[in-house]
Amino acid sequence: METYFESIKNKESSLPEQAADQISKLIIQNHLTGENKLPSEFELAELLNVGRGTIREAVKLLVARNVLEIRRGKGTYLAPNPGEVPDPLGFAYYPDQMRLAMDLVEIRSQLEPWVARMAAEHATAENIKILRECCSKVEQDILNKRDHSQNDVQFHVAIAECTQNLVVPKLIPIITYSITLFVSLTESRLRTETIVGHRELLEAISDGDGLRAEKSMIQHIEYNKALLQEITRREGEK
Amino acid sequence: METYFESIKNKESSLPEQAADQISKLIIQNHLTGENKLPSEFELAELLNVGRGTIREAVKLLVARNVLEIRRGKGTYLAPNPGEVPDPLGFAYYPDQMRLAMDLVEIRSQLEPWVARMAAEHATAENIKILRECCSKVEQDILNKRDHSQNDVQFHVAIAECTQNLVVPKLIPIITYSITLFVSLTESRLRTETIVGHRELLEAISDGDGLRAEKSMIQHIEYNKALLQEITRREGEK
Repeated sequence: METYFESIKNKESSLPEQAADQISKLIIQNHLTGENKLPSEFELAELLNVGRGTIREAVKLLVARNVLEIRRGKGTYLAPNPGEVPDPLGFAYYPDQMRLAMDLVEIRSQLEPWVARMAAEHATAENIKILRECCSKVEQDILNKRDHSQNDVQFHVAIAECTQNLVVPKLIPIITYSITLFVSLTESRLRTETIVGHRELLEAISDGDGLRAEKSMIQHIEYNKALLQEITRREGEK
Repeated sequence: METYFESIKNKESSLPEQAADQISKLIIQNHLTGENKLPSEFELAELLNVGRGTIREAVKLLVARNVLEIRRGKGTYLAPNPGEVPDPLGFAYYPDQMRLAMDLVEIRSQLEPWVARMAAEHATAENIKILRECCSKVEQDILNKRDHSQNDVQFHVAIAECTQNLVVPKLIPIITYSITLFVSLTESRLRTETIVGHRELLEAISDGDGLRAEKSMIQHIEYNKALLQEITRREGEK
């Protein structure tokens, strides 16, 4: 079965590109995990009936795409989150970063309150423990005047993990891309609100109170949105 | 400013990896578009103070990641949607594809009714024209007993484009990944429902009726969800 993603790829693909596809299929069909070593270059060349140079290039392609990783002195293995790449939608190349931030916060407003409610309803004790740690890390960053954006994203990912949905935690780093951009633009006002807002979220989720978690998230994102609108307006006036 | 995405990359990156990063930054800082040719290998080597071999490997990395494209006989250019990759979350490598489909349909239930409402409220005449064409293509596929999954995804992307939000159309191919898997599992029942459901969506959006568009989408996805649950149950009984 050809998937949508396969069909949008360039049809006139090069030999290494074709070999990379075949290696991917091999991995999927054989349910390879990070524990299993990939067959050697020699074996792959035999198996796919192509030259070793082609295999070498194909492996490079798959490493570039984070499907494979080369462990020095050990061999080639499946990467930890195969196929996941940093900035998967190429946001860094968007010309209008402010508009991107606004469009992302619109999506966050729609998705994250639901995520918070699901989190409160499905979190395990282990999830809550991790969430609490993430919350502390953000507070420590803020109190020590360090950039808290990475730990802020991780806090929202930790909430997403409470839902037990496989995909939600993967979407959070995409839709919270604007946090990094945002943190550098905003002042201490938001930092205080972040501490209070995150604590409210943490407590609602650990109490298993879905409605309160949802409301806290709405408030948290609305605050961010209002501030972002203010910045956009100010930038426009310059 | 270091972004979240940069910070999760491997810290001990190779020389070509570092050069690839620098070329990316060059592209972003100079607002390069698909119209502009990248400086030559020789110029880049001079500029970044590394060997031409390193530049060659760096360019290969960026081509593998769909940031750059090589136009034969013309040179190296920025790719059409730079940094966007097929299957950006590596779904193909997920061991439990049925669970993935269920988790995706849960996200669709939450996001797409809102997308449909926003689409009805913000669609331009040109958007509606494209949406109508996409709707026809799916119907033609179904009537001619062809696989309609790719055009089905495109129909949902066309709805997302009506919202005028930059990111929503990029999220649709991710969360509708399960359509392909799904179409092959379901029978003519769903095909009829798809035609009717899509037409209702199209009419509500072209009438600018946000509430009706939202309701139609809820129904459309609920139907898909119910059928998916039935399949999961049947698979479980085997």
